[in-house]
Amino acid sequence: MTEKHIPKATAKRLPLYYRFLNNLHYQGKTRVSSKELSEAVKIDSATIRRDFSYFGALGKKGYGYNVEYLLAFFKKTLDQDEVTEVALVGVGNLGTAFLHYNFMRSNNTKIVVGFDADEEKVGTSIEGIPIYHIDDMKEKMKDIHVAILTVPVSEAEEMTEKLVEKGVSGILNFTPARITVPPHIRVHDIDLAVELQTLVYFLKHYPLSTDNT
Amino acid sequence: MTEKHIPKATAKRLPLYYRFLNNLHYQGKTRVSSKELSEAVKIDSATIRRDFSYFGALGKKGYGYNVEYLLAFFKKTLDQDEVTEVALVGVGNLGTAFLHYNFMRSNNTKIVVGFDADEEKVGTSIEGIPIYHIDDMKEKMKDIHVAILTVPVSEAEEMTEKLVEKGVSGILNFTPARITVPPHIRVHDIDLAVELQTLVYFLKHYPLSTDNT
Repeated sequence: MTEKHIPKATAKRLPLYYRFLNNLHYQGKTRVSSKELSEAVKIDSATIRRDFSYFGALGKKGYGYNVEYLLAFFKKTLDQDEVTEVALVGVGNLGTAFLHYNFMRSNNTKIVVGFDADEEKVGTSIEGIPIYHIDDMKEKMKDIHVAILTVPVSEAEEMTEKLVEKGVSGILNFTPARITVPPHIRVHDIDLAVELQTLVYFLKHYPLSTDNT
Repeated sequence: MTEKHIPKATAKRLPLYYRFLNNLHYQGKTRVSSKELSEAVKIDSATIRRDFSYFGALGKKGYGYNVEYLLAFFKKTLDQDEVTEVALVGVGNLGTAFLHYNFMRSNNTKIVVGFDADEEKVGTSIEGIPIYHIDDMKEKMKDIHVAILTVPVSEAEEMTEKLVEKGVSGILNFTPARITVPPHIRVHDIDLAVELQTLVYFLKHYPLSTDNT
């Protein structure tokens, strides 16, 4: 495997390709063209062909790509056969949405535990996932190194410190806070307000009727 | 204004800069260096300086940037003085999280109406935002052209068709579905499972202890 040489931009698109191919497979499709793939995942077909070229020449002219082969390849690349357990910190509306979300449907990422400070939530479970008190994080997170942060912004820094102390290696941050972590910890930020504002900004300044890129 | 010439990558970072500068302003800070900005928003300072150069040379050596000036500039650029009204379609856990989220705190994007098919939710309100039945969309969305889609994946296509029919120009899609719209409608996709899977993939293949980019 030459995974280390896959460009990051390509790597970012892998889960997207995988999810779509998995759906095709469920529908019984055995092959797919880069044009079909392009329309489905909304990525131009030149980019798709270039991305796929990093894994070797998988496509055939006039035939397209073999779905099963691609799936097996991506499955291996994305380590789909190995389940990554994830903790969720903050069981509010957003956190609850995550717990209900069926992450297992097309990948092997699984939320196995939730934490909250609310005594009414502690001791309950959602979709079979137990909710513990945040003070029990150390004890209940033993082999979990990835966390989703869905606490109120006022709690973000304190909870991040707890997670760092616990030894996580990655945090998916859904709070508007720009959290501070040691350099060996990877943080992916998703700020709902910024996402919405960016869409509105693009609508105003790059209307699609005149700019189709 | 030469907004049309701002590169898209720069445009995408504007809301992020704006939000942070707004926080600084609230804290009473009058100036900020590109290094401070860089640490706060986690974007390297060379990129920040290049981004800012598209608006003219705003920074001064040894002084940094004037917060108030930058804020006024970004405010104008992001059209902060003009409120964009947004509709939310699907008042489940994720939708409810959005309604509770205070979008007005640092920008002028405002959810003013919610839609759901659940009769128990229809007629209620969350944070003062009324929830109507999806069948009343046409009547209740009159001047709204942006929608957040937070329905179950099985409803995504049908709700998208309703929104297209209603004449929206932008959709923030939080369902795992890759929705199909006419080319003049802008869709931004945020798939929670893909975000989580991407973080896990990066953790496995680009560990930060050996690769610090």
